[in-house]
Amino acid sequence: MAVELIAEHGVFGARVGYYRHKSQSCNCDMRFSAFVPALAGSARAPVVYWLSGLTCSEENFTVKAGAYRAAAQLGLIVIAPDTSPRGVEVPDVDDYDFGKGAGFYVDATEAPWSRHYNMYSYVTRDLQEAVLEAFPADPGRQGIMGHSMGGHGALTIWLKNPGTYRSVSAFAPICAPSRCPWGEKAFGGYLGGNREVWKQHDASELVAALGEASGRAEILVDQGVDDQFLDEQLLPGRLEAACSAVGQRLTLRRQPGYDHSYFFIASFIDDHLRHHAGLLG
Amino acid sequence: MAVELIAEHGVFGARVGYYRHKSQSCNCDMRFSAFVPALAGSARAPVVYWLSGLTCSEENFTVKAGAYRAAAQLGLIVIAPDTSPRGVEVPDVDDYDFGKGAGFYVDATEAPWSRHYNMYSYVTRDLQEAVLEAFPADPGRQGIMGHSMGGHGALTIWLKNPGTYRSVSAFAPICAPSRCPWGEKAFGGYLGGNREVWKQHDASELVAALGEASGRAEILVDQGVDDQFLDEQLLPGRLEAACSAVGQRLTLRRQPGYDHSYFFIASFIDDHLRHHAGLLG
Repeated sequence: MAVELIAEHGVFGARVGYYRHKSQSCNCDMRFSAFVPALAGSARAPVVYWLSGLTCSEENFTVKAGAYRAAAQLGLIVIAPDTSPRGVEVPDVDDYDFGKGAGFYVDATEAPWSRHYNMYSYVTRDLQEAVLEAFPADPGRQGIMGHSMGGHGALTIWLKNPGTYRSVSAFAPICAPSRCPWGEKAFGGYLGGNREVWKQHDASELVAALGEASGRAEILVDQGVDDQFLDEQLLPGRLEAACSAVGQRLTLRRQPGYDHSYFFIASFIDDHLRHHAGLLG
Repeated sequence: MAVELIAEHGVFGARVGYYRHKSQSCNCDMRFSAFVPALAGSARAPVVYWLSGLTCSEENFTVKAGAYRAAAQLGLIVIAPDTSPRGVEVPDVDDYDFGKGAGFYVDATEAPWSRHYNMYSYVTRDLQEAVLEAFPADPGRQGIMGHSMGGHGALTIWLKNPGTYRSVSAFAPICAPSRCPWGEKAFGGYLGGNREVWKQHDASELVAALGEASGRAEILVDQGVDDQFLDEQLLPGRLEAACSAVGQRLTLRRQPGYDHSYFFIASFIDDHLRHHAGLLG
C-alpha cells in the first residue's frame, strides 16, 4: 500500500501533497491530497478525512477550502480523496451525478459498477491504511467530514464505524439519499432496486436505527439557506428529526446568504476543524 | 461603463461576485471578480486590485487565495480582473506566456496586438472607473497587488500612478521584465524591439528612474525560495538593488519552503491585506 508523491507545496509553514496509490477495493489507482502540519519529533497527530461532492476530484477541497491555515494551527492532518474510481477501464456514463466523480461512498453490487465502484471500502480500508502507514497519523484519533455527496459519505461512514471515526461534521450533506433524486439514481444504479439495502447507506435511516444514541459524539452540520439543492436533494430536516427521535446530539446551523459552493465551505471550515480538534484531543 | 453581474456567492458574511463589462481600451468584454465587505450605510471602503499571473483568469485568485476572511475583517473591497482581452476576435498564439492569459499589463503598440492588448489602460482607466461606479469604493484609498506577471503589473502601475494607488505589494513578481525570457518575449511582441520603450514597464528601471523616492510608501514583496522561476524569470535582487540605490523602502521577504503556487499566496495573503489596510486607513 505504498503511496507515491505526485506534487508537494509549502503552505502555512507545513506541506500539502498530492499522492497516488493502488486501491484493492477499487481495482485501480486512486489519488488523494494530504496536509501534514509541522510536528515535533515522533509525535502523531489527529487526522480528519474530507469527502468531496459530485464532480469533484481530490483537488477541489485542496485548493478552494482554505482549510490549512486552521489545520496548521490546530495540528491536524487533513486527507482529501478523489470521489470515484478513475481510469480508462472504469465504466462511466455521461452524467455528472453517476459514475466517475459520483461514487457516493458505497460498495456497488450491480454490474458493471461493482468491479470498481467500491468507495465505501476504499475510504474505510485502503485509504485509511495508506494514510496511517505514510503519515504520522494517530489511528485512535480519526475524524471525518464532507460536502454534499461527501457529507452523506461522512455521516454514513461515521455511523457505521463508531470505533474508527470519533468525530463527524458536514457541509450541506445529502441527509436522506433514499428519498432524493441524486440518491435514488445512485443507489438504484450501484445497489439495485431493493430499498431495504439502501437504508444501510442513508444517514437519516441509520440514525433512526440507532434506537438510542447516548454516548455518540455531537454531529456538526452547516447548511446554506440559499443552497440551490436544499429542498429537493439535501433534506436536512429528515436528519434533524431522526436525531431528535433517538437523542443523537446534532448542531444544525442554517446559514442565511450561503449557497452550495466552496465559498460557503471556506467561510465555516475553521469551525469544523475546531469541532474535530476538540473531539479528537 | 455599467457592469453586469454573472454570479454571486455569500462568503465570510459578505458577497463575492463575478462581473462582465465593456472595455473601451481592450475593445472587448472583460470580466473581473469583486469582493465587497458588509458596510454600514453610505460608507465607502478602501479598494485593493489584484493582478494575476500567466494563464490565470479572474477566477484563480477568487477561488484559491483565501483572501476574503481577512478582507472581511479589514473592510477591504478586493477586485481581481482577467489577465488579457478575450473573445474569438482577439488574436492569440499557442503559448502560455504570450497572447490570451498573458496581457502583461502594457498597452501594445505592435499589430495585431495593439487593437485589444491594452491591459495597462484597462486596469488604470476602464476597470477603475467601473469599480468606482459600481461599488462603494473610496477613490482616495486605492491599492494594488499581484502575483508573478501580475506582481510586475502591480509594481509598474503603482510606480507610474502614485496619485491613484497609495499602496502596493507583490508575490513573486517579475521584477525586471526587460532582462528575463518571459518579459523579453512579451515586450518584444507587444511593444516592439526598442528596449528604451520597455523601461517604461520595468519595475526595476522605473525605481531607478525615481532618482529619489522619499515619500513613496513601502513596497511589500514575498518571494518563495523554492520558486521554480526565481533565478531565470523573477530577479528580485534587481528590484532590491534599485530600491536601495534610490532609498525606496522595500520589505522583501524570502520565504523558505514556498514555491510559485497559490498555496504560497494563501499562506501570506493576510499579511498583504493588512499592509494595504494599514496604508489606506
